[in-house]
Amino acid sequence: MKIVIYISSFFVCLTMFAQSNKMERIKVEGNEFVNLAGKVMVFRGINTSDPDKLATDGIWGEEYIQEISKWGATAVRFPVHPSAWRRRGQEAYLKLLDQGIAWAAKYNMYVIIDWHSIGNLKNQLYLDEMYNTTLPETYAFWKLMAEKYGKNPTVAFYELFNEPTMYQQRFGTITWEEWKKINEEIITIVRANGGEGIPLVAGFNWAYDLTPVKENPIEAEGIGYVAHPYPMKREQPWEPKWTADWGFVKDTYPVVLTEIGFCDETAPGAHVPVIGDETYGDAITNYCDDKNISYFIWVFDKQWSPQMYVDDKYTPSRQGKYFKKKMRSYKK
Amino acid sequence: MKIVIYISSFFVCLTMFAQSNKMERIKVEGNEFVNLAGKVMVFRGINTSDPDKLATDGIWGEEYIQEISKWGATAVRFPVHPSAWRRRGQEAYLKLLDQGIAWAAKYNMYVIIDWHSIGNLKNQLYLDEMYNTTLPETYAFWKLMAEKYGKNPTVAFYELFNEPTMYQQRFGTITWEEWKKINEEIITIVRANGGEGIPLVAGFNWAYDLTPVKENPIEAEGIGYVAHPYPMKREQPWEPKWTADWGFVKDTYPVVLTEIGFCDETAPGAHVPVIGDETYGDAITNYCDDKNISYFIWVFDKQWSPQMYVDDKYTPSRQGKYFKKKMRSYKK
Amino acid sequence: MKIVIYISSFFVCLTMFAQSNKMERIKVEGNEFVNLAGKVMVFRGINTSDPDKLATDGIWGEEYIQEISKWGATAVRFPVHPSAWRRRGQEAYLKLLDQGIAWAAKYNMYVIIDWHSIGNLKNQLYLDEMYNTTLPETYAFWKLMAEKYGKNPTVAFYELFNEPTMYQQRFGTITWEEWKKINEEIITIVRANGGEGIPLVAGFNWAYDLTPVKENPIEAEGIGYVAHPYPMKREQPWEPKWTADWGFVKDTYPVVLTEIGFCDETAPGAHVPVIGDETYGDAITNYCDDKNISYFIWVFDKQWSPQMYVDDKYTPSRQGKYFKKKMRSYKK
Ligand SMILES: [Mg+2]
Ligand SMILES: [Mg+2]
Ligand SMILES: [Mg+2]
Ligand SMILES: [Mg+2]
Ligand SMILES: [Mg+2]
Repeated sequence: MKIVIYISSFFVCLTMFAQSNKMERIKVEGNEFVNLAGKVMVFRGINTSDPDKLATDGIWGEEYIQEISKWGATAVRFPVHPSAWRRRGQEAYLKLLDQGIAWAAKYNMYVIIDWHSIGNLKNQLYLDEMYNTTLPETYAFWKLMAEKYGKNPTVAFYELFNEPTMYQQRFGTITWEEWKKINEEIITIVRANGGEGIPLVAGFNWAYDLTPVKENPIEAEGIGYVAHPYPMKREQPWEPKWTADWGFVKDTYPVVLTEIGFCDETAPGAHVPVIGDETYGDAITNYCDDKNISYFIWVFDKQWSPQMYVDDKYTPSRQGKYFKKKMRSYKK
Repeated sequence: MKIVIYISSFFVCLTMFAQSNKMERIKVEGNEFVNLAGKVMVFRGINTSDPDKLATDGIWGEEYIQEISKWGATAVRFPVHPSAWRRRGQEAYLKLLDQGIAWAAKYNMYVIIDWHSIGNLKNQLYLDEMYNTTLPETYAFWKLMAEKYGKNPTVAFYELFNEPTMYQQRFGTITWEEWKKINEEIITIVRANGGEGIPLVAGFNWAYDLTPVKENPIEAEGIGYVAHPYPMKREQPWEPKWTADWGFVKDTYPVVLTEIGFCDETAPGAHVPVIGDETYGDAITNYCDDKNISYFIWVFDKQWSPQMYVDDKYTPSRQGKYFKKKMRSYKK
Repeated sequence: MKIVIYISSFFVCLTMFAQSNKMERIKVEGNEFVNLAGKVMVFRGINTSDPDKLATDGIWGEEYIQEISKWGATAVRFPVHPSAWRRRGQEAYLKLLDQGIAWAAKYNMYVIIDWHSIGNLKNQLYLDEMYNTTLPETYAFWKLMAEKYGKNPTVAFYELFNEPTMYQQRFGTITWEEWKKINEEIITIVRANGGEGIPLVAGFNWAYDLTPVKENPIEAEGIGYVAHPYPMKREQPWEPKWTADWGFVKDTYPVVLTEIGFCDETAPGAHVPVIGDETYGDAITNYCDDKNISYFIWVFDKQWSPQMYVDDKYTPSRQGKYFKKKMRSYKK
C-alpha cells in the first residue's frame, strides 16, 4: 500500500500565471465547439513542427509563436513525435510544452496537443522509426498530459493519435471496433486524470476515413473527430466525396481538420498526397467555412513539407501566401 | 530444435539444506489452509520491506528475520518490487530470496513471495515507476519462482500481484473477467513449472474488493484470496462491510489479509488509507480470529509506512507495540 | 502527414544481380509446390546454423554454402535467432542474408528464411533467452523480409515461427484459434509488403502437431505447413502416427519437414527428441518420398546437435553420412 495524494500547487500556480485571462474552457455542444458564453467557436490554426525539432533548430521561442498569431491563427497544434518525446526525455519535453502553451495563451491562441504517430498501434508497425510507440506509452502520455494540462483552458484539445493507418495492410489489420476501444480507453484515462479538454479522434486511411462513425461512433460525450483531407486523397470535384468520407460527421459531432495544406510538385519535400494549389485551398476553406469546421494548416516550418515559409524571415511559401491572406480575412 | 532437460541437483540440494525439518507443505482443504496432518493453519505474519531495500540499507540479515520471529510472526511476506527485481538483477535478487527463505525456515516461518506492483497490469499504468512491470515479465517472474522454489515447502504462498487497481480509472479499465484470465494463466504457468505452493489472488480497489468472486471465482483448485482492509477503506462499523466486500469469500475459500496496519495521522509517511488506531487493530484481529483468516502486518521497516519499529533497536512504533503483543498472545 | 514512396532501385538491382537465372518463383498448386512450368518440386534441403553464429565462427562464406550443395541439397534453411538478429543489428544481419541468398542462388538452391524462436509468442515465454521475441518484433521482421526479399524467387519460403510450443504449459497456454490469427496477420503483412514467397506455418508441440488443421486450417491461399518429426516424438512404428499427427495435411496442402535429423545418445549435445539412427532415417525419408514431402536436415554445423559434420573438413557425422548419401541419390 502506498497512496500519496497531494495538490501540486507549484505547477498549478505556474500554469495559471502563464495563461491569459482571455482563454476560457472550450466545450462541445451538439456538433459545435462553444465558449463559456455559448458562442460557437471555429478555429483556423497552424501546425508548428515538433517543438523538439524547433528547439534543436534554435527557432523555438515566443517570436515563432507570435509570428503564427500574426498570420491570423486562432489556435496552434503541437505535434509531439513519440521518438522526440523519448529522446528529449519527459521532463525536458514538458518544459517545451509549458513554454509553447504559455506563449499561445499570451497571443490568445488555443492549443491542440497531438500525439504524432503514423501507423497501426495495435501491431506496432509504423511509417518510420520516429513514429514508433506502444499502447502503454500512449496511455501514459495522455495520463500525464491530463495531469499536467487538464485544467488549463488554453489546452483545448487532445488529439489522441495523429494518423491511424494500415497502409494497405503493410501494417497489418485493425478493425474500427478495436480502434474505437483503444480511443475510448484513452478518453477514460484522460478524463479520470482531470483532463477537461476535448479529445479528438481520427479514422483510418491516415486520418481520412470517418465512415464507420455513422454506424458505430466513439462512445464518449464531448469529443470531436479529425480528418486530414489533403488534395490528393480524392479527385475533383472533392466536395461530395469529402461529405461522404468525413464531412457528414459534422451533422452530428464537431470536426477538426487538424492537417490541410498543399504545395507544387516541384516544391522541396513534395509527396503524395499533398500536391495541389489554390483551387484546393479555396475548396477546402469554403467547405469548412460553410459547415463551421475548424482547420489547421500543415506546417509552420521551412523544411518540413508542405512548408508555410521558406527562409529565416518567415517569407511565405506559395501555400503560406494563400493561407496567411485567408486566415487574416476572418473577422475576429 | 533444442530441448535440454536436466535436474538442477545443485540448487535442489541447496534448497533442501536450507530448509528446516519442521516446515511442511501447506495445502488448501475447503476454506482452510492445512498441514500434512490435516491441522488447520492460520498465519499471523509480518511484511518485510523489499529485501533489495533492506540489503541496500545494510539491514538484510538473519537477525532481522529472527527479530520478526521474536515478535510472534509465524510467516513473513517478501514484497518484490518489479523495479528492484530489474535493478538488482535476477541472479543477485535470487540470492536475497535464497537467504530470506532459509532464515525464515530456520525460525519456522512460512513465506509469501509477493510480486509487489500496484496498478493496472492490462494497461501498464502504475502508481509509480517502482511498480512498473509487464504481463510477460510477470509470467516470467512466476515461472522462475516456481522453478526455483516450487518444491520448497517454506515458500507456502505465491501472491501473484499485490494491488490491482484502476485508481478510479486513472489507470483505465480492466474487467474482472480479464483479471481472472490473467491470474488463471499465471496459476497454470506456476503449476506447470513445478510450483506446489498456494497461489493467492487479489481483487480490484488496491486488493480490497472480492465481490466478483461470488459469481465468478478463479477457475483453479487449491488457491486463496487476498484483501488489504486498511482502516480507511471503510467507515466504522467495519465488520458488516468487510463481510460484504471480502469476508464472505472465507465461507468458501481461504482468505489472507496480506497487508493490514495503522498509524497516527501525524506519523511519518502517514497516508490514505492507513490512518487508524488500536480500535482498528482490535476489530480486524478479532474479525480474523473468528473466521480463521490469516493476516500480515505492513511493514517491518523504520521508514516505510506504517512503520512497525522506529529505530535501529527495533523499538516498536505504536502499531508495532499493538501487534507485537497481539501476535505473541497466540498459542503456538 | 508524411508519406514517402520511392522505388529502392539500388537494392532491387543488387538483388537481381545476385540471383541466378535458373531460380524461378515456386508456387503452391493444390497440395504441391510447382515451378513456373507447373512441374512438381520436392526439396531435400539442409539447415545451416544461424548465419550470425557461422559468421562469428569464421565459417560463413561461399565455400560453406557450396559444400551444402555438394551434399545434394536443393535448398537451404537459414535459422535467424531473434537474439542474433538484435545483437548483430538489422543492417549487419541483412548483409549476411544478402550473401547467403546470393550464394544459394549460385548453387541453384532455394532458401527458407526461418524466424527461429521456440516457445509461446502470446505470453513471451521461450525456451531460452536466445529465442526471446515479441509479436511486434515478429511482425516487423516479416515486413522487412517481404520488402527486402519479397520479389527474389530464390527466397521461396518464409517460415513464420520455428517451433510454437506451450511446453506442457510451462509457457502457459495459447489456443489454435489464437495461433491461427497470429499467423494470418503475419501472412497479411508479408503479402501487403510484396512478399511473393510461400509462408510456412507450424503447429504446437514444437512444430509437430498439425491436427487442428483438419477442422480449422489457416485462412490464406498459397501456403504450406511445417512439421519437425524428430525420432523421439513418437514410438515406432512411426508411420501411422505421423499420418495422424501431420502427414494427413499433405492430402490437401503442401508440407515441409523443415527439421529432421538423428544422432546417437552418446553424441555431443544429444538431447530429447533427436536420438535415433538410420532406421529413423529410412522411415522418414521413405515416408516423405512416397508423399512428395520436402524435408530439411538439422544441422550443418560441427557443434550444434545433431551435427551433420564433425571437423573443419566437413567430415560427415553418422547422420551426415546417411543423409549425404541419401540426398545425392535423388535424380536432379
Ligand atoms: Mg503495499
Ligand atoms: Mg489505413
Ligand atoms: Mg530447432
Ligand atoms: Mg480499482
Ligand atoms: Mg506445445
